[in-house]
Amino acid sequence: MPASASPFDFTALVRADLPPAAARWNGFPRFNFVGGHNDEGSVPVDDLIAAAGRVLRREGATLATYGMQSGPLGYRPLRDFIVRKLAKDAGITCTADEVLITSGSLQGLDLVNAALVAPGDTVIVEEMTYGGAISRLKRCGANIVGVPVDHDGLSAAKLSAALDDLAARGIRAKYIYTIPTVQNPTATVMSVARRREIIALSEQHGVPIFEDDCYADLVWTGERPTALYAMAADDRVVHIGSFSKSIAPALRIGFLVAKWPLMSRILPIKTDGGTPALDQMVLAEYCQDHFDEHIVPLRQTLRRKLVVMMESLRERFGDEVEFEDPAGGIFLWMKLPAAVDTSRLEQLAVRSGVTINPGAEWMTDAVGGRRHLRLCFAHPTEDVIREGVAQLAEICHREFGVPARDPGPHR
Amino acid sequence: MPASASPFDFTALVRADLPPAAARWNGFPRFNFVGGHNDEGSVPVDDLIAAAGRVLRREGATLATYGMQSGPLGYRPLRDFIVRKLAKDAGITCTADEVLITSGSLQGLDLVNAALVAPGDTVIVEEMTYGGAISRLKRCGANIVGVPVDHDGLSAAKLSAALDDLAARGIRAKYIYTIPTVQNPTATVMSVARRREIIALSEQHGVPIFEDDCYADLVWTGERPTALYAMAADDRVVHIGSFSKSIAPALRIGFLVAKWPLMSRILPIKTDGGTPALDQMVLAEYCQDHFDEHIVPLRQTLRRKLVVMMESLRERFGDEVEFEDPAGGIFLWMKLPAAVDTSRLEQLAVRSGVTINPGAEWMTDAVGGRRHLRLCFAHPTEDVIREGVAQLAEICHREFGVPARDPGPHR
Repeated sequence: MPASASPFDFTALVRADLPPAAARWNGFPRFNFVGGHNDEGSVPVDDLIAAAGRVLRREGATLATYGMQSGPLGYRPLRDFIVRKLAKDAGITCTADEVLITSGSLQGLDLVNAALVAPGDTVIVEEMTYGGAISRLKRCGANIVGVPVDHDGLSAAKLSAALDDLAARGIRAKYIYTIPTVQNPTATVMSVARRREIIALSEQHGVPIFEDDCYADLVWTGERPTALYAMAADDRVVHIGSFSKSIAPALRIGFLVAKWPLMSRILPIKTDGGTPALDQMVLAEYCQDHFDEHIVPLRQTLRRKLVVMMESLRERFGDEVEFEDPAGGIFLWMKLPAAVDTSRLEQLAVRSGVTINPGAEWMTDAVGGRRHLRLCFAHPTEDVIREGVAQLAEICHREFGVPARDPGPHR
Repeated sequence: MPASASPFDFTALVRADLPPAAARWNGFPRFNFVGGHNDEGSVPVDDLIAAAGRVLRREGATLATYGMQSGPLGYRPLRDFIVRKLAKDAGITCTADEVLITSGSLQGLDLVNAALVAPGDTVIVEEMTYGGAISRLKRCGANIVGVPVDHDGLSAAKLSAALDDLAARGIRAKYIYTIPTVQNPTATVMSVARRREIIALSEQHGVPIFEDDCYADLVWTGERPTALYAMAADDRVVHIGSFSKSIAPALRIGFLVAKWPLMSRILPIKTDGGTPALDQMVLAEYCQDHFDEHIVPLRQTLRRKLVVMMESLRERFGDEVEFEDPAGGIFLWMKLPAAVDTSRLEQLAVRSGVTINPGAEWMTDAVGGRRHLRLCFAHPTEDVIREGVAQLAEICHREFGVPARDPGPHR
């Protein structure tokens, strides 16, 4: 390009509804409490290398074809592993033809929305829920109805009221989206009784359930309840899961489970030429021998980091921070006094290299989320957790007078 | 699920504009001439295994983070390789911040469309072009204007007329989509003079160019012309490329090159959590040492298969089939006498295990494409090519009387 070139202006050509422009990326912050990054020391590097060698030696030539002789649902040995795993861990009976490998569970969200949600359609979600689910539904033009959650998960009484209200207005929601097992962000596990109630309400109103179980491998006790997918008497539940939290997020491997009548409508809108091969192949080869032996110490590591985070928060914020001890996962969800605006706190903290997820992005009622925030404890080391929480307390004290007592210098 | 379960009916809930339901996959057909599958013997299995071992040993722990310490544009060493490769092969000067790694060049198409094309917008494409580009634009609700191509590529005279016609109606097209180097499906290479004319027309009308160069590594001579991206005097060209045709399609690694003002608008709509890691990492590690030594014999292998296909077609169809000797790539595009309907031929052939891409799907004017068809010669062995072409000729003779003479039993 000649040095004199002036930029061509795309401003008038880009769609009017695009999100704001990205800033250039400048590396991870020092105190990285956002997103779903995981523990670096737990990546099973040696076994992944061995798995890569074995599977490529055996099947490497199939990389020459789209779908590697497995068809559009994804690498067959990985689907077979998922079928066995879901039977053992979640009580799900399904076949390999009912499992679609996706690029992370995010693609599962996109596909279900693309199949079901047109602009103006109504969708029911948990009032506190995954921010990426909310932002996606907004981009679809959906009418989002948030239903409160409590310690046992999605409130059945409130869901019943919401469904009645919609029915009175002649509206049939497209689905009820729930993260029942290690809810994001509350990290509770939906009780079995509550699961029964939710399914009964789904049946009563003819509204299917969209079950996002992507944290379910990380219940501290190692025992996850039977999935909604398995408890329903018919095809009404679409289930998604992921290996991002159990093995590694960068692999971008998730899966979607649905009976064939719905799967056959979802498959033609997955127009990506197949989920990338190496991640699927290496993961399948690794998991067949190593998943169970990997997940137990990972849970212990994460639990230890969580304890450090809870202790640090207690030490720095005293009783002014409220949280429930998570049943599993990688996040701690908390509430601060009314004086605090966590969206403002986020903006201030990032200048000191502390990143947090403000509650406003994780609640359907953004205003209701201004006292909440979510911290991921999986990625930072225990020392970084202590120092980052101290930093955050200092910034919060300075700006909002919370904690009321100066939390002191961080050590 | 209890055995008595009856299916929940999603029929009333799925979007009205979905494509038809998928059929269950039953394995590849014996004579597989569709899509972009490549030569199995050319997958560099040993070197990919070595690359996987090296890169995972060195950087495996970064799999614990979204983006592997490289940010949302993709794995940095792969972007660096692409910057060097484009400078050497395509005359493109760009930085790593102007390269976005995508899940195949298909995601590049999706992102450019999502950034620029709203329902009712107009887009200019080559009259014969990639079927996936046409189907995507239809799903976007775009008004598609097809402009004829000739041996030198997109016709400048016809493009000029189309742009004038749109201008007269007050319409500014969102982009001109072209596959200049080994066009899909015609397999010609746009001349340098033609490239200059296309850029001049783009400048005159203020319509940017979307350059799809995903076959450019497969020009038989090894010399690809300077890319349109490099020839333009400003930011007006968006460029996409791929490793699907040069290394392996199942890896699903493509890339998009754009200046930052446009890239910064595209990046926030890539909401997939990052392109999968292992494919990016192993590919980068492999390519740094081996790309050039790999691509030369691959071109020779593909050229040999093409010669077998052209000879088989001549032998079976005689002068009744018209085609031009491709300048590179993996496809042969041909035209049969007016008696033939290739969409019907496709339906008949598949019953005998012969799959083809009918011309109607590769032309903006589907009716104009009914005599055309596209065959991929990269995947089948030379024997399978011979036998498959013989089968196809026999079926075509039986149904349409083309070739007029019975092509005889296949050997």
